Amino acid sequence: MTDVLDSAVDDGLRAVFADARVRAGQYGAHYAALWESLEQQSAGGKRIRPQLVNAAYFGLGGTDRSLVTRVAISFELLHTAFLIHDDVIDRDTVRRGAPNIAAQFAGRARDHGAGDRVSATWGETAAVLAGDLALSRAHREIATLAVDDDRRAALLDILDRAVFVSAAGELADVVHAGIPETPRVDRVLATLEQKTAVYSFECPLAAGAVLAGADGATVDALARFGRLVGVAFQIADDILGVFGDPAVTGKSAASDLREGKQTALTAHAATTDAWPAISARLGDPELDDGAAHLMRVALRECGALDAARRLADEHVTLARLELDAAHLPEALRAELGELAQHAAERAR
Amino acid sequence: MTDVLDSAVDDGLRAVFADARVRAGQYGAHYAALWESLEQQSAGGKRIRPQLVNAAYFGLGGTDRSLVTRVAISFELLHTAFLIHDDVIDRDTVRRGAPNIAAQFAGRARDHGAGDRVSATWGETAAVLAGDLALSRAHREIATLAVDDDRRAALLDILDRAVFVSAAGELADVVHAGIPETPRVDRVLATLEQKTAVYSFECPLAAGAVLAGADGATVDALARFGRLVGVAFQIADDILGVFGDPAVTGKSAASDLREGKQTALTAHAATTDAWPAISARLGDPELDDGAAHLMRVALRECGALDAARRLADEHVTLARLELDAAHLPEALRAELGELAQHAAERAR
Repeated sequence: MTDVLDSAVDDGLRAVFADARVRAGQYGAHYAALWESLEQQSAGGKRIRPQLVNAAYFGLGGTDRSLVTRVAISFELLHTAFLIHDDVIDRDTVRRGAPNIAAQFAGRARDHGAGDRVSATWGETAAVLAGDLALSRAHREIATLAVDDDRRAALLDILDRAVFVSAAGELADVVHAGIPETPRVDRVLATLEQKTAVYSFECPLAAGAVLAGADGATVDALARFGRLVGVAFQIADDILGVFGDPAVTGKSAASDLREGKQTALTAHAATTDAWPAISARLGDPELDDGAAHLMRVALRECGALDAARRLADEHVTLARLELDAAHLPEALRAELGELAQHAAERAR
Repeated sequence: MTDVLDSAVDDGLRAVFADARVRAGQYGAHYAALWESLEQQSAGGKRIRPQLVNAAYFGLGGTDRSLVTRVAISFELLHTAFLIHDDVIDRDTVRRGAPNIAAQFAGRARDHGAGDRVSATWGETAAVLAGDLALSRAHREIATLAVDDDRRAALLDILDRAVFVSAAGELADVVHAGIPETPRVDRVLATLEQKTAVYSFECPLAAGAVLAGADGATVDALARFGRLVGVAFQIADDILGVFGDPAVTGKSAASDLREGKQTALTAHAATTDAWPAISARLGDPELDDGAAHLMRVALRECGALDAARRLADEHVTLARLELDAAHLPEALRAELGELAQHAAERAR
């Protein structure tokens, strides 16, 4: 996939936020600051979803950049909304290495003389509202799109699916992390697909294709491809979350283990003799770096790392088969092939 | 305003939730339960917003019930979303006298063997997601409305304003409750308007009018009327929150005082000699019933109760002037006049 970032998306997002900040200023400095935080939160991303929308749209013959940019912005804002509300759920205070909205507003409260309880409430309020505002704007970008009713309806259906399935996945993720249950690979894969692959890969590709006027078979093929590649990316993320270099991944290599996150790694480990020892420490919030190291050794030795890598590879293989079977222009096929390749390499 | 509840709205909401529950079931029992909780949360309301949408629409000559029902449903779901996310912000566990979504899901976690920390996370996750789902559906109801592009755009602008201004008001409310600041009546009124009057009164009336094809002057007059009446209702609520009968209001008559909520009552009290004694206890989470009783006496004696009632009356008077000046069919004028009367009586 092209590394050249589409500046139209960044420009469009800047315009959305500039307009909102001016409007917000009428309601006081705190509200303007909330929109500033929201813009910052949105600015740090890699714009993967806009790139997928653009790739499908231009790759299938679309030519109207202003139109596709609004769809791309919609998916980017949806992503921003989900990240922000994810942080509320996880009570996180850091996102992409910097204080997130909740942390910024908690700090703002302290600057105004508030104590701990009030500061936490400011932070949580700001994060809940910022997510709602980003989510609303995501809907608005597509709802006001100047296309015919059928095409807009199809795009709204895709957006609806993105929200509906992601919520299912987020709920499943929290539920499975929280209760003493043996992880199962089918459930792990379903959660990865629902929580991330659908809204981040499937839906942006499908939306770009619909907007370009692609036929149903092509839209469906891109959707399936996106879902498979998306799952491969998420398996790779889970591997990196335990075995990756914290300097590269930006998060502690012990945090998934401390959380007791159910992954392709733990699901495989649960089928081996190593499970009693691993499960005894998994999800221990006090897990220190030494114990985390021992768990990594155990996960490697029981074959979990290899199994997770194989699973990622299998998804990439299936994704490639979708590409091969679909009727796609060569340039788009090549671009999506590179994306699949990238997913496979990430898992290694 | 008519007390006859429009069953089309209830039927429409039932259909929305029935469809969602079936879809959700594919993602497991927890997700289906989330939609059930969301439906319960939505079912308990008085349907004020749908009634206002309908009143404006039919009162201005609209005839398409299926169309107006979808707009009415949109505002009801918006309200549901805001209530749910309000509870997240306030960490409330009770809504309309019953366990709210967070409490229901925390209980569900305990039933699955989870401890306190995990149960709280389930509850918070469910509430954040349920609010997002209701908000998304509110957008979808209007985005997919079968009207011409101009009318849909105008409705989407109203919805956008409802979300944008409510978020400003919610943030202002939390900010002003949390920091040691002397309440001011202008700020209190602005917060009431932004947090509730705009999305609950102004926007539903404006949307009904736009959908009926009313001219701009009529839409604007109804919007102003709604905003004024809405503020009067909220002042009345603040009075009832301190002086009302808990058996009628459904909440403790001490909770606003414990929270330190800034109201028309406290804003007036802050201009009197009684303020040092009142402000010393306001916002004390440990405030007992005896101390709350003494604060009520102090608020009454310093003239704050009378001042708040006068303020509500003034808003009702201004609202009536809007009605008088607008070109409205007699039946609609009469219905909205009754609404204004109701607001005035509530404050007494």
